[in-house]
Amino acid sequence: MPMAPGEPIEADALVIGAGPVGLWQVFECGLLGLHCAVVDVLPAPGGQCHTLYADKPLYDIPGLPASTGQDLVDRLCRQIQPFAPSWHLGQQVVALQRRDDGRFALTTSEGTQLLGRCVFIAAGVGAFLPRRLPVEGLEPFEGRQVFHHEAPPTSAAGLHLVVAGGEDEALQRVADLCDAAEPPASLTLLHRRDRFDGADPALAARLAALRAAGCVQVLAGQPGGLEVHDGRLTALQVDTPEGGPVRLPLDQLQVCLGLSPRLGPVADWGLAMARRQLAVDTARFETSEPGIHAVGDVVQYPGKRRLIVCGFHEATLAAFAAAERLRASPVLLEYTTSSKHLQQRLGVLPGVTNPS
Amino acid sequence: MPMAPGEPIEADALVIGAGPVGLWQVFECGLLGLHCAVVDVLPAPGGQCHTLYADKPLYDIPGLPASTGQDLVDRLCRQIQPFAPSWHLGQQVVALQRRDDGRFALTTSEGTQLLGRCVFIAAGVGAFLPRRLPVEGLEPFEGRQVFHHEAPPTSAAGLHLVVAGGEDEALQRVADLCDAAEPPASLTLLHRRDRFDGADPALAARLAALRAAGCVQVLAGQPGGLEVHDGRLTALQVDTPEGGPVRLPLDQLQVCLGLSPRLGPVADWGLAMARRQLAVDTARFETSEPGIHAVGDVVQYPGKRRLIVCGFHEATLAAFAAAERLRASPVLLEYTTSSKHLQQRLGVLPGVTNPS
Repeated sequence: MPMAPGEPIEADALVIGAGPVGLWQVFECGLLGLHCAVVDVLPAPGGQCHTLYADKPLYDIPGLPASTGQDLVDRLCRQIQPFAPSWHLGQQVVALQRRDDGRFALTTSEGTQLLGRCVFIAAGVGAFLPRRLPVEGLEPFEGRQVFHHEAPPTSAAGLHLVVAGGEDEALQRVADLCDAAEPPASLTLLHRRDRFDGADPALAARLAALRAAGCVQVLAGQPGGLEVHDGRLTALQVDTPEGGPVRLPLDQLQVCLGLSPRLGPVADWGLAMARRQLAVDTARFETSEPGIHAVGDVVQYPGKRRLIVCGFHEATLAAFAAAERLRASPVLLEYTTSSKHLQQRLGVLPGVTNPS
Repeated sequence: MPMAPGEPIEADALVIGAGPVGLWQVFECGLLGLHCAVVDVLPAPGGQCHTLYADKPLYDIPGLPASTGQDLVDRLCRQIQPFAPSWHLGQQVVALQRRDDGRFALTTSEGTQLLGRCVFIAAGVGAFLPRRLPVEGLEPFEGRQVFHHEAPPTSAAGLHLVVAGGEDEALQRVADLCDAAEPPASLTLLHRRDRFDGADPALAARLAALRAAGCVQVLAGQPGGLEVHDGRLTALQVDTPEGGPVRLPLDQLQVCLGLSPRLGPVADWGLAMARRQLAVDTARFETSEPGIHAVGDVVQYPGKRRLIVCGFHEATLAAFAAAERLRASPVLLEYTTSSKHLQQRLGVLPGVTNPS
């Protein structure tokens, strides 16, 4: 159907994020008769499975004893083909508003206007930005000696290394560095105080063991300035709670302060958060805003594990919840193995070809 | 390790049910270092995917655009091979007790003794028996004119058909019969009263529409006796609330009174139930008995959908919960794509071959 320029593209559901869980969201919505528009900042579907794990092995997708990230993405893309979503890739969400008629109007960075009756946020870690260490003058060293959130591409073997942070990401990084075949020459964890209450208790216990084993030392304090010699970052000046500044020499600084939500316009909605993720219930996987569901790595709920297999379940229940809300009536469970209705939607009924 | 006769087989986890969700339970337990013993009443793994859907298509397993039940089972069996569970197939659970040391002792119908530190009930519908219509003399017609729970193998086209029941199963059966390409000559739903409060509201609404369309009539009453002519069941005598018995002629009777839990010895534990299923929480998928988890079609929780994709998630979180309880400490999430630890358990680390 040709459209006048600027006329919004209508869909039943707007899916933000085209990683494996967003793709599965399209599938489950499709089975329930909901047509999706998919927005992702990346130019291709797959999310992290495309960007980080394309050729890395995944062993814990049920029914796929060994696949790669890209293989999984290709399979999911093939699986959702019958539901022919409208794709809006390489675009960021710049506005999301609820209209008077209850529908959601979404605008992308390309100016694409989408109109949907419900929203699924499946933005994964793509919805977050690394939190930066508040010290002036770090920028010139970024990617060479200073790394925020992303681990450096090369080994830390033989380096005097400082990890900044006191929550899960920093403690996990320290554990990974200590596990490495060739550990750093020295490893210091810099945190504003010598307590790690905000971290996963298992990681905190691991840190304690690594300290006891002498693999890592902890320095409590706030970085106040830099020392630079011949264009190289050589030390941090750290203000310690005891008073005097301490000089912390280093070859490399890995800042692991976690991520700040970059929900963009969604942040303005004031959606309820839990442990810096979107809080959802476990029956509908809905945020605190009716009609806005969230699934995958972007959510938090009791028991949550950031695994693809869990995201598939979350997207499934979210689709049912959205369908029930839109129909204002309960939705029957049908099985693809026996339901003619679903097989027709899938385009697999003998004699029925799907137009897509 | 050779064992003296009668000495129990020890495992970390006892998995009751070898359907796809039980198999996935073995996988997730294996990743977390828990070795499983698996018991199933069927002689082969796969549960319903083996017995009912072996060559039927499944379209809603993420990453498998089209598979058969047996294909899925074969894939899962291959996937759990590194964790080499001990198999106890073709055996029913006849006793399950908690010992003084907190472990669970399980006895099968073959006299096998298993000892485990936690239990996962993944028994699916295999844990249930059809509830029977309380009328004497039906047995001789079973499988010919009378069917309990299982739909007859042949079409109901042209038959005068009575469906007995008033909950989901009966209402779903009526809907299926009305949807059939060749509907029955007549269709009567027999229920003790003309109310369907216990049924899924969507199914109740569907029934109302089918009644309005004349596809089905409802008779409220209790069956009191049979009419048999020349070895054929020809009618039910039905006591109606208004008083007089009514004669309900029929060619076929489909009893859809749901299932009674056949949890065997587990029933004696008095586990909390919800809608006739095992009640579990959505963080640990644990029953009301600590250490006994339940996953898949046998459980109920808010939002529950009886889909394999949901069972995979349930088994995943149940494994983490069990591991945390057994270690009495939080369990870190590791990824199979990057964790050497998990890859070692999976037997996929270069240079490491798994003994199994």
